[in-house]
Amino acid sequence: MIIGGNEDRDNDKPVLRRIVALSERAQPKIVVITAASAEPDVVWQAYDGAFEDLGVRHRQRLDLPDRHAADHAAHVRTITEADIVFMTGGDQTRLMSALAGSRAAVAIREGFAHRGQCVAGTSAGASVMSEHMMASGEVRSPPTKDMVRLARGLGLLHGVIIDQHFSERGRLPRLFAALAHHPPLMGLGIDEDTALVVRPFDSIEVIGSGAVTVVDGSSSTIDRVACAHGEALQLEKVVVHLLPAGGRYTRHAGATPVGPGIATAVHLLTTAACG
Amino acid sequence: MIIGGNEDRDNDKPVLRRIVALSERAQPKIVVITAASAEPDVVWQAYDGAFEDLGVRHRQRLDLPDRHAADHAAHVRTITEADIVFMTGGDQTRLMSALAGSRAAVAIREGFAHRGQCVAGTSAGASVMSEHMMASGEVRSPPTKDMVRLARGLGLLHGVIIDQHFSERGRLPRLFAALAHHPPLMGLGIDEDTALVVRPFDSIEVIGSGAVTVVDGSSSTIDRVACAHGEALQLEKVVVHLLPAGGRYTRHAGATPVGPGIATAVHLLTTAACG
Repeated sequence: MIIGGNEDRDNDKPVLRRIVALSERAQPKIVVITAASAEPDVVWQAYDGAFEDLGVRHRQRLDLPDRHAADHAAHVRTITEADIVFMTGGDQTRLMSALAGSRAAVAIREGFAHRGQCVAGTSAGASVMSEHMMASGEVRSPPTKDMVRLARGLGLLHGVIIDQHFSERGRLPRLFAALAHHPPLMGLGIDEDTALVVRPFDSIEVIGSGAVTVVDGSSSTIDRVACAHGEALQLEKVVVHLLPAGGRYTRHAGATPVGPGIATAVHLLTTAACG
Repeated sequence: MIIGGNEDRDNDKPVLRRIVALSERAQPKIVVITAASAEPDVVWQAYDGAFEDLGVRHRQRLDLPDRHAADHAAHVRTITEADIVFMTGGDQTRLMSALAGSRAAVAIREGFAHRGQCVAGTSAGASVMSEHMMASGEVRSPPTKDMVRLARGLGLLHGVIIDQHFSERGRLPRLFAALAHHPPLMGLGIDEDTALVVRPFDSIEVIGSGAVTVVDGSSSTIDRVACAHGEALQLEKVVVHLLPAGGRYTRHAGATPVGPGIATAVHLLTTAACG
C-alpha cells in the first residue's frame, strides 16, 4: 500500500484501517519502521496510538537507524514474522541509507512478493517502494532534467516511480522531470490521505480522500528546448489518467469499466510487483 | 498575450517589455483596464510605473467599474485608439460583469481580430480571453464536476479554457474538472511570470520564466465513478504537453521541431482567434 503522506491518524483513519484489514488476521502483528524520520520517537507515538485505536494489539517499533541495525538477525526476524510492515514518513534517502542492500530489505521484498505480507509506506515510506525512487527534487516549472535526483529504492515495484503529497504540493513538473530521466517508467502521483493498494497480478485500488495520478510517458517525446533556457524540458503527448479514491481496477475486466489506457496501467502495475 | 499572473513588474520585466515590443510602435498607446480589481488605484499605480519604466509615454487608465461605463462612447474610443489593451488581475467575474455584452467588449474583440491590436491580460485578465472562462473553482483532488463554475468570457479565443497561476497553485485538478464540463475544449495552464503569445493563423510562443501546460481531453474518456464518491471524476488518457518558456511554435513547420501532438495544439490555438 502506497500512501501519499498526511493520512488521517486521529479520526476515522480509513487508510490505516484498511492496512489492518488487508492483513486478513484477527490479531495482526505490525512492525513500524521509523528509519526515515529524524524524530522516530514522535512518529512512533503517533502510529502506536493510531494502530492501538484500531484494535491492533501486537505493535512493534523498529528504528533501524543504520545498515548495521538493518542486518541484525533479530530485526530481520521481527520483519519476517510480521503480518504488516509499515514504513513512516521522513526522508527517503535516510531510510534507504539504512536499508539499501540489507537483510531487512531482502526480508521486506520477499515478504511482499512471496509470503503475501502487507507492506505499507507513507510519504518517504511510499517513495522507497519502487526500484527507482525520487531521492530529492525541487518543485519548479518548467522542469529541468537535473531538477530531480533519482536513487535506488527497495524495489518492491518495477517500472514505476512514485511521488507523494502530489496534488497538495503541485508536483507534476517534478514527476515530469523524473520521467525525462527514464521515459519508460510510469509515474504515480499519490495525493495526501490517499493510498494505492497494489495486489500483485490481481488489481489496483485507490482509497482515502484524494486521487492517484498516473503519468505515462511511454508514447511521449521529451526534448530539451534548444534556446536560452537550455535545460528546460519540453514534453509532448504525455498521457495522464486520474484515478479518484473509490475506484478499483482489476487486471481482467473488472467492476469498473475502463478503457485501454487505464487497463494498460493496471496490467503494468499489477505485474510490477517483483515475483 | 495570456499572462499567468504575478509577472515581474519591478526588475527586467520581460513579459511587460514584450507587450510593448509586440505593438511594433515606437510610441505605443497603452490602455490599462483595472475593472477586475477591487483596488484599481493600487493596481494602476503599479502598471503605470512599470510601463513608464519601459519608456511608454502614452498610458491611460480605464476603470470600467460597470456596464454603463463599458458602453460609454469616450471609453470605447479610448480602447479603439489604443495600440495595446492591458487587463489587470483581480476577479474575472467582476471584470466580465462590467464587460459582458458591452461596446467595450466588442471593441476589444474587433481590435484583436481585425486591427492587429495587442490585447494582453494577466491572471483574471487572462482568464476572460476565451469564450468559456473559469469563473471560480476550488483546488481539490480528486476533482469533481461541480467543483468549477464556468461562465462566458470575452471570446477572443474559441475552443480553449485558460487557468493561471497554474503550477504555483497546483491547478491541474481544477483544469481537469473544467474539461469534464466541456471535453472538446483544450485547457491552457499558464504559470506565473509566464505568457502565451498567440498570433492568429501564425504561431504561439511561450515567454517568461515558467511554462504553459496544454491539456487535451479530446481523446480521453471522462467518467464519474459509480461508487461511494459519486461525484469524483475518473479521467483516462488525457494528453498533456508541457511547453517551457523560450519555445516558439509556428503553424507551418517552424524553428522548433515538434511532433503531431503539439502541432495539433498549435493549429487549434492559432485558429482559435476569432476572425
